[in-house]
Amino acid sequence: MPSEFALINRYFKRPTPHSVLGVGDDGAILQPAAGCELVVSTDMLVAGTHFLPNTDPADLGWKVLAVNVSDMAAMGAQPKWALLAAALPAATESWIEKFASGFFACAEAFGIDVIGGDTTQGPRNFCVTIFGEVPAGAALLRSGARPGDEIWVSGAPGRAAQGLAHLQGQALLSEPALTDCLTALHRPQPRVALGLALRGLATAAIDVSDGLLADLGHILEQSGVAATLQLAVSPAPTFEEQCFLSGGDDYELIFTAPADRHAEVLVLGKTLSLSLSCLGQITAGNAAALTVLTLDGAPVTIARRGYDHFAS
Amino acid sequence: MPSEFALINRYFKRPTPHSVLGVGDDGAILQPAAGCELVVSTDMLVAGTHFLPNTDPADLGWKVLAVNVSDMAAMGAQPKWALLAAALPAATESWIEKFASGFFACAEAFGIDVIGGDTTQGPRNFCVTIFGEVPAGAALLRSGARPGDEIWVSGAPGRAAQGLAHLQGQALLSEPALTDCLTALHRPQPRVALGLALRGLATAAIDVSDGLLADLGHILEQSGVAATLQLAVSPAPTFEEQCFLSGGDDYELIFTAPADRHAEVLVLGKTLSLSLSCLGQITAGNAAALTVLTLDGAPVTIARRGYDHFAS
Repeated sequence: MPSEFALINRYFKRPTPHSVLGVGDDGAILQPAAGCELVVSTDMLVAGTHFLPNTDPADLGWKVLAVNVSDMAAMGAQPKWALLAAALPAATESWIEKFASGFFACAEAFGIDVIGGDTTQGPRNFCVTIFGEVPAGAALLRSGARPGDEIWVSGAPGRAAQGLAHLQGQALLSEPALTDCLTALHRPQPRVALGLALRGLATAAIDVSDGLLADLGHILEQSGVAATLQLAVSPAPTFEEQCFLSGGDDYELIFTAPADRHAEVLVLGKTLSLSLSCLGQITAGNAAALTVLTLDGAPVTIARRGYDHFAS
Repeated sequence: MPSEFALINRYFKRPTPHSVLGVGDDGAILQPAAGCELVVSTDMLVAGTHFLPNTDPADLGWKVLAVNVSDMAAMGAQPKWALLAAALPAATESWIEKFASGFFACAEAFGIDVIGGDTTQGPRNFCVTIFGEVPAGAALLRSGARPGDEIWVSGAPGRAAQGLAHLQGQALLSEPALTDCLTALHRPQPRVALGLALRGLATAAIDVSDGLLADLGHILEQSGVAATLQLAVSPAPTFEEQCFLSGGDDYELIFTAPADRHAEVLVLGKTLSLSLSCLGQITAGNAAALTVLTLDGAPVTIARRGYDHFAS
């Protein structure tokens, strides 16, 4: 069986052209560009909690990095560097090789240097830390939404939750929705280009990791505002509509922008070939109050806003 | 049971005076001082692999940060920021409160802002990422050792391994050694002041996490040099001597420095009230060849250089 150090050298050591020092010392060394701040984030993915134990390792490798890249997108930051810490039950080389291929496919797709990490034995767990650059003061925060702003979302959230429900036998999808939803679940596409383009346009942003309503709720709390949504859903949402409202794991962006910049947002969507949908408005009501209406103005019953790891 | 978000707000959100943006958004924002590079490192600690499941949570909180601080010390970097990702089997508040008290005790001892992280459900696993500053080009690397350099170690490695052996019933320590060894195991003291003082003095450095000989081996490999040690051990090392040679988890620093700066190193040890011992010399032999002799010049039998997570 190869040693921990041989595994790292064989599968996780690649060129790091944007770094002062990459894999192999007690730490890596990087330097943000002049005038830039460094945005940092970490996400931990655990077998059985965040992914099914039989997930294809190449898909998993893609996803553990992609969900972190998504945090950079939500901050309007350009992802540039990442660290990978991994606990593995055993050093199964074929599994690790596939995992690394997916991980580095994502790194290459977004121009990220993988500059270090940690490898250890234990129940399968991956913790990525990602670093991005943003011009000083230009980051997109959750706290900037103001009454009158419009609320937007990219793409079509809910597909990952539908794919997961299918795999868990709680829903039965047929083609072409099945492939579409499983791709959304296994190969999420972080909206980096959108995040970068939203600098100076969006007033607040977050990525949809816990669910559309839950993550919008974080913007409302931190901005101290309320919101009203008008959505193409039923008063008692169907399964598919519930996935749209509360399903996590999609990594689309929710953002707010001044109403007088509505046309600019639509042009941006066309430029990026990405659907951007206006869901409603920020209001001055009680902080974090969220009103969800159908397109006819009827109230929508919300069973659950989203996912909480320790909710009973 | 409190939610994930309530737990973070209650136990893990503290002031972050050295940061642009702390806990609570998709990412945190920091900016290294002008002329400084950022040194980053991540370490994952897993229940059953890195710590006994019944470890006192306050000790564990200290240790998961301290082992990362030690990586900054080994790079000659000033630790400034940290992220904490934690997988927990359940949200037991009393446990989390104690863990947080130890974690923040370490953060405060070293002036570190805890700027974010992740909390999730799963087998107990802690992954800290740490960020430090170093003047550009001044970091201590593993690759700088040169023939003729002397090899030094701080403190007395091996005590943590003795403490662990006692807890696992493989050794029986009595006081005062017992308290001393358990303190070394549970409350390691990263050698930050030493690391900072070694800038411009040491040619290479590493911390003792896998074992003295194993970690010295990393310096030899990356510097392309060999070494000869003259040590106060027996030709067939006793248990205590084996712990000194190959025990991990001590977080002392091994470093190399030019022989003509021997006196400066001794003065530094006095200044820091820290024992600094010269163990031998770097030589020009085959890369990574390591000769270990007694003080009488007899060869020492080495069973194992140190710890490897996937060694069979």
